[in-house]
Amino acid sequence: MVASLGIDLGGTFARAAVVGARGELVASAKHTLTDRSPEAVVEAIGMASERALALAPGVEVSGCGVGVAAQLDLVKNSVRVAPNIGWRDVPLGALLERRLKKRVVLINDLKAACYGEFVAGAGRGARDLLMASVGSGVGSAAIVNAQLVLGSHGVAGELGHIKVVAEGGRRCGCGEYGCLEAYAGGMNLIAQAKEAVSAGRSPKLAALSQGEPSGPLPPQIEEAAHAGDAAAREIYDRAVSYLSVAFANIVTVFNPARLILGGGVMAHCPRMRKAIEDGVLRYTSMTSRVGFSVVDAQLGDDSGVVGA
Amino acid sequence: MVASLGIDLGGTFARAAVVGARGELVASAKHTLTDRSPEAVVEAIGMASERALALAPGVEVSGCGVGVAAQLDLVKNSVRVAPNIGWRDVPLGALLERRLKKRVVLINDLKAACYGEFVAGAGRGARDLLMASVGSGVGSAAIVNAQLVLGSHGVAGELGHIKVVAEGGRRCGCGEYGCLEAYAGGMNLIAQAKEAVSAGRSPKLAALSQGEPSGPLPPQIEEAAHAGDAAAREIYDRAVSYLSVAFANIVTVFNPARLILGGGVMAHCPRMRKAIEDGVLRYTSMTSRVGFSVVDAQLGDDSGVVGA
Repeated sequence: MVASLGIDLGGTFARAAVVGARGELVASAKHTLTDRSPEAVVEAIGMASERALALAPGVEVSGCGVGVAAQLDLVKNSVRVAPNIGWRDVPLGALLERRLKKRVVLINDLKAACYGEFVAGAGRGARDLLMASVGSGVGSAAIVNAQLVLGSHGVAGELGHIKVVAEGGRRCGCGEYGCLEAYAGGMNLIAQAKEAVSAGRSPKLAALSQGEPSGPLPPQIEEAAHAGDAAAREIYDRAVSYLSVAFANIVTVFNPARLILGGGVMAHCPRMRKAIEDGVLRYTSMTSRVGFSVVDAQLGDDSGVVGA
Repeated sequence: MVASLGIDLGGTFARAAVVGARGELVASAKHTLTDRSPEAVVEAIGMASERALALAPGVEVSGCGVGVAAQLDLVKNSVRVAPNIGWRDVPLGALLERRLKKRVVLINDLKAACYGEFVAGAGRGARDLLMASVGSGVGSAAIVNAQLVLGSHGVAGELGHIKVVAEGGRRCGCGEYGCLEAYAGGMNLIAQAKEAVSAGRSPKLAALSQGEPSGPLPPQIEEAAHAGDAAAREIYDRAVSYLSVAFANIVTVFNPARLILGGGVMAHCPRMRKAIEDGVLRYTSMTSRVGFSVVDAQLGDDSGVVGA
């Protein structure tokens, strides 16, 4: 049997898996990241990989794909910026090739997840797909003619940084203003809710999130919005509206067979997920709605390693 | 020499050209459409093709591509809806194969133009491109990994029908509300200007467009806006803002090497074209701005036949 080694490098752990040619998971192992220096992370990936390989004896592993929550330089096979683990310009591809003694290809984590869903998940059987993720940030990935869209510099899919407010918008983590993520990403939902609670404008949300060290979480914002908290409702409705229109507009332009929704906020805020599906179907152009559907990601944590 | 036959079917004429393997124009001919019935149009295309072929003796023509301003059914090789010539469900591919005795492939006119620019115009040397056109309507086409983006049902690129106003927007020709084209397409620029003139809100524009049978034209709207006409300014600025943000947002998501601007409004309203270039560079995400440029379409009328 011929297989590949798929690695998902997150902010808190490295996961390695032996994945068959049709995307089936043969064996997997996880290693927690205690130290986030490049050397320690490479070692953690090495350990997870050795354990996964040991669980799949007799399987011939050809190459290795690594999904990273980062902006990558695909030509140099290196990490440009990885905010989660605080990296800038790390030659991860070369470091891992030395450690694993295999050819290593880096890929953005959301593109890996999308590719995973394409070969073995919610995207099976379609040649044109979009995946949109609402987690701590907002991002997207696309499959066109059965190929991942990478873009001319490998940074296609930055849906979180499209502008939803042209002038005078909220400041985004990227340094610019008016980005979708500044209103609808998980971190920014929390930040906006904190502002409302601090200003005394959101009593229900204050009660619901009491004792939450990081501030009101997205499911609590959803609950407060539906319980009649006006400030929570405003934050929530604005996020739903911006996400719905943005997702619909990329569906109109790409004309995919399916839009796959993923990410923690989509998984833990079911009413928001439903409102966004309704909004996408409402705002997508008539012609791109034909034969189109909104579906949930199926592979969960596995999509990253399978796609990589 | 091996070449292809490229046909551009517009609203007023059919143009046929013999095009070499690298996109070079060998010979071309045009036939005016007097009657727009499918039979008459097929005959007009046949005549234009025969003339173009006669101008290129000894050239072996393999197949034929036809660019049509229409929504197509790529599986049936037929026209679904062509508003310009008033067609609905016409099996143009089969009719032309019978007339021309060649294999015929239909393609949307803007996708043909984009492909033409890719092989022989403003897109040469890039594998990832976007083309946006502002003419009587608004549309787009994309090249990803050196391939045209068709979409799962062949209708990718309907940028004119993304929603720029979620609720209570202007009615679009497509029957929906709040589409980009309803504010920024040439026909709708004229319609909005007519409303302003009829309501007496736009004296400068009324003077500039006096005697214009179809109403104020886009270059006149541009001129009035810059001459201090408040109503013209509002229409103009809104169109510039919506187009800039929309183009920037698709650049952010696709990460192309170039955005090619085409269409009559872009060609005849130079200040609008410049304002849109500035806006696109301003609103595109930082990461997608790297190595990116906005350029003009180069092939003009030839892009359609070359691409087809």
